[in-house]
Amino acid sequence: MTAKESAGCRASCSRGPDFLLKPLVGPVRKNTFGRKIFSMSLVITGTMAFDAIETPFGKTDRIIGGSATYAAWSASHFTQPIKQISIIGGDFPQEELDALAARGVAFDGVDVKKDGKSFFWSGKYHMDMNSRDTLVTDLNVLAEFNPTVPESYQDCEFLMLGNLMPSLQMQVIRQLRRRPKLIIMDTMNFWMDIAMDDLKETMKQVDVLMVNDAEARQLSGEYSLVKAAQRIMAMGPSYLIIKKGEHGALLFHGNHVFFAPALPLEEVFDPTGAGDTFAGGFIGHLARTGDISFHNMKTGIIVGSAMASFVVEKFGTQRLTEITREDIAQRLNYFVDLVNFDIDLSA
Amino acid sequence: MTAKESAGCRASCSRGPDFLLKPLVGPVRKNTFGRKIFSMSLVITGTMAFDAIETPFGKTDRIIGGSATYAAWSASHFTQPIKQISIIGGDFPQEELDALAARGVAFDGVDVKKDGKSFFWSGKYHMDMNSRDTLVTDLNVLAEFNPTVPESYQDCEFLMLGNLMPSLQMQVIRQLRRRPKLIIMDTMNFWMDIAMDDLKETMKQVDVLMVNDAEARQLSGEYSLVKAAQRIMAMGPSYLIIKKGEHGALLFHGNHVFFAPALPLEEVFDPTGAGDTFAGGFIGHLARTGDISFHNMKTGIIVGSAMASFVVEKFGTQRLTEITREDIAQRLNYFVDLVNFDIDLSA
Repeated sequence: MTAKESAGCRASCSRGPDFLLKPLVGPVRKNTFGRKIFSMSLVITGTMAFDAIETPFGKTDRIIGGSATYAAWSASHFTQPIKQISIIGGDFPQEELDALAARGVAFDGVDVKKDGKSFFWSGKYHMDMNSRDTLVTDLNVLAEFNPTVPESYQDCEFLMLGNLMPSLQMQVIRQLRRRPKLIIMDTMNFWMDIAMDDLKETMKQVDVLMVNDAEARQLSGEYSLVKAAQRIMAMGPSYLIIKKGEHGALLFHGNHVFFAPALPLEEVFDPTGAGDTFAGGFIGHLARTGDISFHNMKTGIIVGSAMASFVVEKFGTQRLTEITREDIAQRLNYFVDLVNFDIDLSA
Repeated sequence: MTAKESAGCRASCSRGPDFLLKPLVGPVRKNTFGRKIFSMSLVITGTMAFDAIETPFGKTDRIIGGSATYAAWSASHFTQPIKQISIIGGDFPQEELDALAARGVAFDGVDVKKDGKSFFWSGKYHMDMNSRDTLVTDLNVLAEFNPTVPESYQDCEFLMLGNLMPSLQMQVIRQLRRRPKLIIMDTMNFWMDIAMDDLKETMKQVDVLMVNDAEARQLSGEYSLVKAAQRIMAMGPSYLIIKKGEHGALLFHGNHVFFAPALPLEEVFDPTGAGDTFAGGFIGHLARTGDISFHNMKTGIIVGSAMASFVVEKFGTQRLTEITREDIAQRLNYFVDLVNFDIDLSA
């Protein structure tokens, strides 16, 4: 008698990629592919900005960037509407806003400072693509960012707090009259260095925290990521995602842990925005399904990893604007193959 | 209509852990647990030695070490007989040989230099456990190692070339009259630095090469591991395993790639021998099943990863001598849980 069970869902997506954009429950509307998709209100706050990027493969002039921009592009493949809270200058291109709007992104919460300039970041990646030097940081209008939640955003079910000053993230949470079903917070070492108290206060209010491995160690004072995770979850968030770049990501919850690999890529062309894109795919999947169980979060992390694997293939958000649902389904199948194995139960 | 397929074999091992040690085909004999196990002749060459280890958690006097020792302990949980080829001095403890013999390890190919001293290595790990300083390397009898394959080893089906001078690895291959079903080679940067030509010659003769990520880059001259893998496979081995320590392992074959996570551990107490233990579990599983398909190698990598996750829990080989088949089955289940996810095919 032989029984084999498969760890990896080999042919799971072979029935067709449509599932990605199919409605599950609740109100539906059409997305830019002309397909009905599920809508559960997703609010994203973060930066909408310009970047100038130099990698070993080339350099760009000013291109569109920002944590909220990457997250919105990524999430828009899964859910609508997406409600942005950000601040931009008069220099932010109308075409970019139009392109996002066409994908269901609303801007009622985006403060447009006609006479100001958008946040600008410039950086240069080293050969290994894991480290980079910041060349320029011009806060510009970001220095006056005072996020305001419009009345039309009060139906927020899913809240993505993109990387931003923790006190501003808190300001968004406080303005929501009804607590969202799920609050996800992304942050970084910079805020740990200069605003740790605010960061810890904000952490208490969120469900899912997202940091990289070095940041998890800094935040917890523990080298072991397992111990770090336990400490961080004791500080507020009941879920912790530790991003390890080319080494994948870990999801912790209580005593449970899930590991998602990163796709082994021939080239990482431009890593900018990979974390924000991951976050957008993750919360986009959760908002699409309306299911915030640990089990569904695992799938969300695979979806986020798949989206991140696209964004690094070209400069900026470009890949996110051109990929189709077929591309995404193929990539998800690749992830399934990547981790699929059998444990033989021959007896 | 809803269909879900699972990527991760969730409850797969819950039917009981016995499968690990059950015979599949071919001649059977009993292992030290009193259970019949499959036997397909496995030959392991490498060092049998003493180590003195210092980690942030403590230090040891001289304890048993060596690549062939770790590999044999690890493989002995899955297959018998295991036929060692190595060299030891008169100082190598008889109790260690007896303990290994009780687990089906044969020493016909082990050269005992009564008046010599066994190879000795001493090292100190840094806080992150990923880097270490070598304090002492006393080759002792290893300097005169001239591996000889006894007649009783000519039935070799599986050959594990543990980390050793490449010309000696080649010497073992050449003495086998019938080519083994599978030859696996482990090597390291040290040989790339001082014996690259020999290493490349030996590589041409093997099926599976095992190196870490830095070594894959050194050997190929490529930073991207995907490109590195393609180059290395063009040099001979049709399978390549890249070990990434705490970040898991990758198996490449043609255009296929499989990723196995490392277990997120609270503490890595002593990483010594983790790679050799991984190799022993991998080839032990293949020898047990007699199946050298890519698909079965994926399972082998999970088995190897599970064994490596044990060995780092205490100094030296200790954990390998005390774990039971239940421990191993539990650990395998943990790996299954770690990577299990669903792709929702709701339509």
